[in-house]
Amino acid sequence: MKRTSRDIRTANRYGVLRQIIAHPPVSRKELAAATGLSLATVANLVGELLALGLLTEVGFEDSAGGRPRGLVAVNASGGALVGVDVAETYVHVELFDLALNVLARADEELRPGESGPEQVVRHIAAAVESATGRAGDGGGEGRILGVGVSVPGQVDREGGVSVYAPNWDWHDVPLLSLLAGHLPHPLHLDNPLRACTVAELWFGAARDRGDAVVVNLGTGVGAGLALGGSLHRGVTNSAGEWGHTTLVLDGHPCHCGNRGCVETYVGAPGIMRRLRELDPGSRLLRPGDQTATIAALARAAAEGDPVAVAAVRETARFLGAGIADLVNLLNPEVIVLSSWVASLLGEPLLTGVREVVARHALARPLAGTEIVLSPIPTNPVSLGAATFALEGFLASVGRGTPGPGAPALLPGPADGTDATAR
Amino acid sequence: MKRTSRDIRTANRYGVLRQIIAHPPVSRKELAAATGLSLATVANLVGELLALGLLTEVGFEDSAGGRPRGLVAVNASGGALVGVDVAETYVHVELFDLALNVLARADEELRPGESGPEQVVRHIAAAVESATGRAGDGGGEGRILGVGVSVPGQVDREGGVSVYAPNWDWHDVPLLSLLAGHLPHPLHLDNPLRACTVAELWFGAARDRGDAVVVNLGTGVGAGLALGGSLHRGVTNSAGEWGHTTLVLDGHPCHCGNRGCVETYVGAPGIMRRLRELDPGSRLLRPGDQTATIAALARAAAEGDPVAVAAVRETARFLGAGIADLVNLLNPEVIVLSSWVASLLGEPLLTGVREVVARHALARPLAGTEIVLSPIPTNPVSLGAATFALEGFLASVGRGTPGPGAPALLPGPADGTDATAR
Repeated sequence: MKRTSRDIRTANRYGVLRQIIAHPPVSRKELAAATGLSLATVANLVGELLALGLLTEVGFEDSAGGRPRGLVAVNASGGALVGVDVAETYVHVELFDLALNVLARADEELRPGESGPEQVVRHIAAAVESATGRAGDGGGEGRILGVGVSVPGQVDREGGVSVYAPNWDWHDVPLLSLLAGHLPHPLHLDNPLRACTVAELWFGAARDRGDAVVVNLGTGVGAGLALGGSLHRGVTNSAGEWGHTTLVLDGHPCHCGNRGCVETYVGAPGIMRRLRELDPGSRLLRPGDQTATIAALARAAAEGDPVAVAAVRETARFLGAGIADLVNLLNPEVIVLSSWVASLLGEPLLTGVREVVARHALARPLAGTEIVLSPIPTNPVSLGAATFALEGFLASVGRGTPGPGAPALLPGPADGTDATAR
Repeated sequence: MKRTSRDIRTANRYGVLRQIIAHPPVSRKELAAATGLSLATVANLVGELLALGLLTEVGFEDSAGGRPRGLVAVNASGGALVGVDVAETYVHVELFDLALNVLARADEELRPGESGPEQVVRHIAAAVESATGRAGDGGGEGRILGVGVSVPGQVDREGGVSVYAPNWDWHDVPLLSLLAGHLPHPLHLDNPLRACTVAELWFGAARDRGDAVVVNLGTGVGAGLALGGSLHRGVTNSAGEWGHTTLVLDGHPCHCGNRGCVETYVGAPGIMRRLRELDPGSRLLRPGDQTATIAALARAAAEGDPVAVAAVRETARFLGAGIADLVNLLNPEVIVLSSWVASLLGEPLLTGVREVVARHALARPLAGTEIVLSPIPTNPVSLGAATFALEGFLASVGRGTPGPGAPALLPGPADGTDATAR
């Protein structure tokens, strides 16, 4: 209920910039039509983004005899964003320009026994320094607008705390406070599920859609909810735990303590278990290596291997039943299959899922919902983490300095007086 | 994404009026604090609602030496709203004043064989005329702001069409067009699930909450989603079909054609089946009468009858597992148990559900979510239907005449220029 004028103003900034990134170059009039905002509001927001150096004027278009319309686009070199994907065994960092092109990458391996918070923080800092150093002068080391960090598990984003990371048994680790000692940039924390969801919202299949669900298929499983054009977080920032909804009451035990959770059937370990049940001595199984096993399964299925085909079909049966629940409950415009398991199993999995969903879902919601593979060609987690940094920067405009090393900000109007939706 | 300035202005009107109804009398300053809108916006919206006759000035409060602040409240007699609950066997109509007090009620029985659209429409019109006639002059027959109609099944609310009503095998019945021949008021159509949800949002447990889920337990089962202070409808206005999400893959057959749906375990027919399984000759069973059976079950459980206690406990086991899914996926502030089965089974069901949810849900979302029985003491469907009429009236302000017999409307500012969030 309580959505302040600042929230509305920030959401309008997101909306306008998202449109400019999606459809450049674009006129203010086109932006007004696409966002539903008034021309005056759009002009004001565009002026503000121009003054911040995030946009650039790129010429004019004719307007059938009227005054030629100025076109704007993102000023790619107007700043840089860093996205950090911290996973169980690695830290992957990407440096982006403002058009979200990758300028540089860096990786650090997390060896077994290196999962203490201080160790992980040193690896993150080293990878960020490596990526930003590699980009050279053009990369805008002098104007990094922010660093977004994704860590697995439950996070308190306002406090910058990793509340619970099951893989490392972390509890209430103040990750951003620790990182602030190493990195002089505004820092933003969230988890991979929400990172993938904002990546789809800004750059992928959820862009320009009213409501979207981003189904994340990896070792863990979740469903990021992008409703009404923004991420649905829930009251404790933990919405989206679809992996721990019941598909088979009293079914297979899940590590969460429950039974029959979606994740136990469609997460990578569940798929490996299925393969073992179908063929205990399968040559596709790489014990201890989920990625290699799922990759081998995908290749074998493409070659028509009967066990592999059956394993994919059976996975689609459980996944499709779970996705039909999302269709019936949320009635979204699009459901996006994301993360590495979806990416490896690809079209055969998608085809199977669509068939099962068509059998399980009700006709009316089904007719309105499209199911697609994520169109994002790069790592969606680091892209999404960088997007959190961009959103954080846009939310901080007019709020004073958001953190050490932050770029100078323009003061915003005192209470958003003249730039809200009209 | 595309939320027009008119949408924002309408949402602001809802927000302000909802606060005034909830906490009267109230000052403009308190309204600004409660809604997050600027004082200027609130003053403008209040002025508009005063001019429309929906509010009244009710005196002043001291402001510690400053200028005394004017207080406003709803002008209960400033108009009337009609809520129509059309069910399988009856039409129930309530006439409300603007503070949503019931002024008059009327009922019509729908006998078997009277389920043709023309017959149902005649019963609706007769009940509405009876209720509005009964209220006399004080009821404001001369100023009915709108009639909200709830019919079971899937509806196209913009078109006023009952797309599919399974009980009567209705397909694409243009219900509001048929009704317009009988009733000279603005008409609004939706279904009981969404009616109960807006009733909770304006007057019940979802009021002043960020996100709420209203679980409807009747013959059918659904979950109305009130997210960010407004109803989540989905792309084809069919979100909330939680009754047809899978709880037991390949489980009990459901009338939707699927198996193992939540509804087959916790809807009234599922509870009757459970009772029959526990005790085939149970004296609690009233074949063909769901309401009498559930009422008898509730009384027997309160008296400690072992079969009844077991039936309620087993129902809570399935219901709790399903509600834990809603907690994990949506992480709402509150889950409200609504409709007649929840109302009859009451506290014993609630207690059982809370225990099961605590076992099934993840700790972090669980900690943020309260589970309560609906606090609405009257029929939530007719109250919600009347609320749709109120929302429809507020949305039509400045849009010209919304329909035949509509009250004269003030012209709104051309494009909401000075009353949006600031």
